Amino acid sequence: MSVNQDRLEQRIFDLAKFGLQPNGETERVAFSDADVAAQQWVIKTLKELGLKVHIDYVGNIIGKREGKKPALKPISFGSHIDRVPNGGDYDGCVGSMASLEVLEVLKENKIKTNHPLEIIIFSNEEGGVMGSRAIAGHLGKEALSIVNSTGYSMAEGIMRLGGDTTRIAEVARKKDEIAAFLELHIEQGGTLEKENIQIGIVEGIVGLAWWDVEFTGFANHAGTTPMNARQDALLAAAKFIVAVNEVTTSFEGAQVGTVGKIKAEPGAPNVIPGKVVTSLEIRDLSLEMIEKVYKAIKSRANEIAKASNVQIELRPLDTTADPAIMTVTIQDEIASSASELGLTTKRMPSGAGHDAQDMALIAPTGMIFVPSIGGISHSPKEFTSAEDMANGANVLLHTILALDKKLD
Amino acid sequence: MSVNQDRLEQRIFDLAKFGLQPNGETERVAFSDADVAAQQWVIKTLKELGLKVHIDYVGNIIGKREGKKPALKPISFGSHIDRVPNGGDYDGCVGSMASLEVLEVLKENKIKTNHPLEIIIFSNEEGGVMGSRAIAGHLGKEALSIVNSTGYSMAEGIMRLGGDTTRIAEVARKKDEIAAFLELHIEQGGTLEKENIQIGIVEGIVGLAWWDVEFTGFANHAGTTPMNARQDALLAAAKFIVAVNEVTTSFEGAQVGTVGKIKAEPGAPNVIPGKVVTSLEIRDLSLEMIEKVYKAIKSRANEIAKASNVQIELRPLDTTADPAIMTVTIQDEIASSASELGLTTKRMPSGAGHDAQDMALIAPTGMIFVPSIGGISHSPKEFTSAEDMANGANVLLHTILALDKKLD
Repeated sequence: MSVNQDRLEQRIFDLAKFGLQPNGETERVAFSDADVAAQQWVIKTLKELGLKVHIDYVGNIIGKREGKKPALKPISFGSHIDRVPNGGDYDGCVGSMASLEVLEVLKENKIKTNHPLEIIIFSNEEGGVMGSRAIAGHLGKEALSIVNSTGYSMAEGIMRLGGDTTRIAEVARKKDEIAAFLELHIEQGGTLEKENIQIGIVEGIVGLAWWDVEFTGFANHAGTTPMNARQDALLAAAKFIVAVNEVTTSFEGAQVGTVGKIKAEPGAPNVIPGKVVTSLEIRDLSLEMIEKVYKAIKSRANEIAKASNVQIELRPLDTTADPAIMTVTIQDEIASSASELGLTTKRMPSGAGHDAQDMALIAPTGMIFVPSIGGISHSPKEFTSAEDMANGANVLLHTILALDKKLD
Repeated sequence: MSVNQDRLEQRIFDLAKFGLQPNGETERVAFSDADVAAQQWVIKTLKELGLKVHIDYVGNIIGKREGKKPALKPISFGSHIDRVPNGGDYDGCVGSMASLEVLEVLKENKIKTNHPLEIIIFSNEEGGVMGSRAIAGHLGKEALSIVNSTGYSMAEGIMRLGGDTTRIAEVARKKDEIAAFLELHIEQGGTLEKENIQIGIVEGIVGLAWWDVEFTGFANHAGTTPMNARQDALLAAAKFIVAVNEVTTSFEGAQVGTVGKIKAEPGAPNVIPGKVVTSLEIRDLSLEMIEKVYKAIKSRANEIAKASNVQIELRPLDTTADPAIMTVTIQDEIASSASELGLTTKRMPSGAGHDAQDMALIAPTGMIFVPSIGGISHSPKEFTSAEDMANGANVLLHTILALDKKLD
């Protein structure tokens, strides 16, 4: 039994139509009209595949397929369909569409599993793995005020998606409610392609922490304010961005530190910026390293603030994800399914965060990676071949079937 | 004969209502709905004061008051009512409302001058002294594509204001068409307040040049792209901003270099920015110094580009203003009018660009400064007292009357 490669690829193309821009690229940031429309399309498709579908209180799409033994806990799988600004068509879409494809193949082959199956299309993955955090029971109140590039806060976005911010707590699952969780995703790095390997088996996911960094200087006329009388918030922010790079690369290891977002106010060529807000993200497999890098950045920020006569405030955001280890027995099951399909595999860490990271807190969890061409992701140039996608979907399908036989 | 201080201040308050935001601050960037509405209000007021008023092809408000000797060239005066984003209520508004007040006092006192009088409220001063450049005959085609924070290009903005981009050339005046031009403006620096002086007499206006600086790296996932494999456009931009500051302050002199605007794409905390665009502005009383600073910045940009694997392109914008010397005989006339009114004066340069800069290319030109409290401008905290505004308006009034007697 095998997935339909063309149908899977067609669904990737169909999904990319939601948010298609005149330039041929797609924009579908969580909470956007395109995100809501894509959500409705997925729900319709799942219903056609015979699932019972609903939107939970945090905006996740939950689809349920009955098993032969209703007393068994569900085997769950899925990914996300929201995208970063200026992102690509693959990212979470591959795992989401592959999950639909798995359900379609099971239906075509009239296979009823022992366990109930559950597909979860998580809401707002890119803006802080919102949906999976809620299911894991730790989406804090503070996170709800975070505004993404649509202009909506998480709270507003949840309402747009059909959730209910007053009932988010009800979304949380207990530790023993899900038999296993699986997520297929593109690698987003260049290792599988470089080493010519078809399937990545994720061993663990790096932890991640975010901050908002606010620089408060004083806006003034750029022509009449001498260089030595300025409180230039953008100059201080520039020094900070350089420092983030210097500090992050000053330690041995694979940790990364990134400033990806910046806004300067008032933002005119002839006005000294009085206020700047940037993002700060640090990732590593070890929490200690994240803390170490942060402390060194904070200390440099204090020096810059003093030297520039600009206040710098680092505010932690409630989007922190601890490093997560994938369940070894599930890793093994993925490995043997891939091997039976004749696919080459490699065990590897994930540098990107995923919904699986939070699902690992409440369920035995595994992740399957497929190659990203050139290691490019979060970019319109992101690409994974139809064959690689089908390979991943087949591994997902057969891992689900294997787990269905083995698990209680 | 004296202006009405309360009426002048009330007009400043009335003008600030156009674009008033819920937070109590006003936004009225050129071409905005608020700018168009304020323009209509000024036209209505000028008509009530008995002037013949029209919008010229570049969107300037032109009001004409007949003189006793129609063969004489007009004495012109005015300023602008558009504002920078997050700017203040005084800036060009003081000179504009003082010009209305001068006309109202003349009407109240039934004074008919020998020369025709002409009030000019210049369009889009803040986005590159658009209206005055057109009158001076050097608003280039290239400038018309510059987009300001309203999202409109100059070309689109001119159409919004009631101009006609196909006929801008007709706005240009010949060198002998205006007898004299006067502009009253807030100082935008802290010298007059610090030295407790009531009236500044401008000797010259610094030159200014603008560039758009584009940084092209490669957008990629911040979790999966190692630090040494990044082409981070924002990191390169940060190094550039620091370099602009270092280079500008490395030469002796009062030159200023500013990066006030920045946009990073895609602009998400978890994506390495692939593209950044910033502004660059350099000002000085000497063109040679502007060129010297620019060359040094360009050379640093090349080094940064090479080291960061990011392309950096500096594109000159057609908003360059050469340093302008104010006409000495007009400076003297301002001085003697102020002195007759018992006001203290100081001759000084202007660090800010003004419409008077371009008017000086085609007419004998003078500028009157009034104090800016704390030297703050282009900020909601900008302030000039009603008394100082009235002092300036009185000097404007009596200089016009003195010139009317002396000039042919």
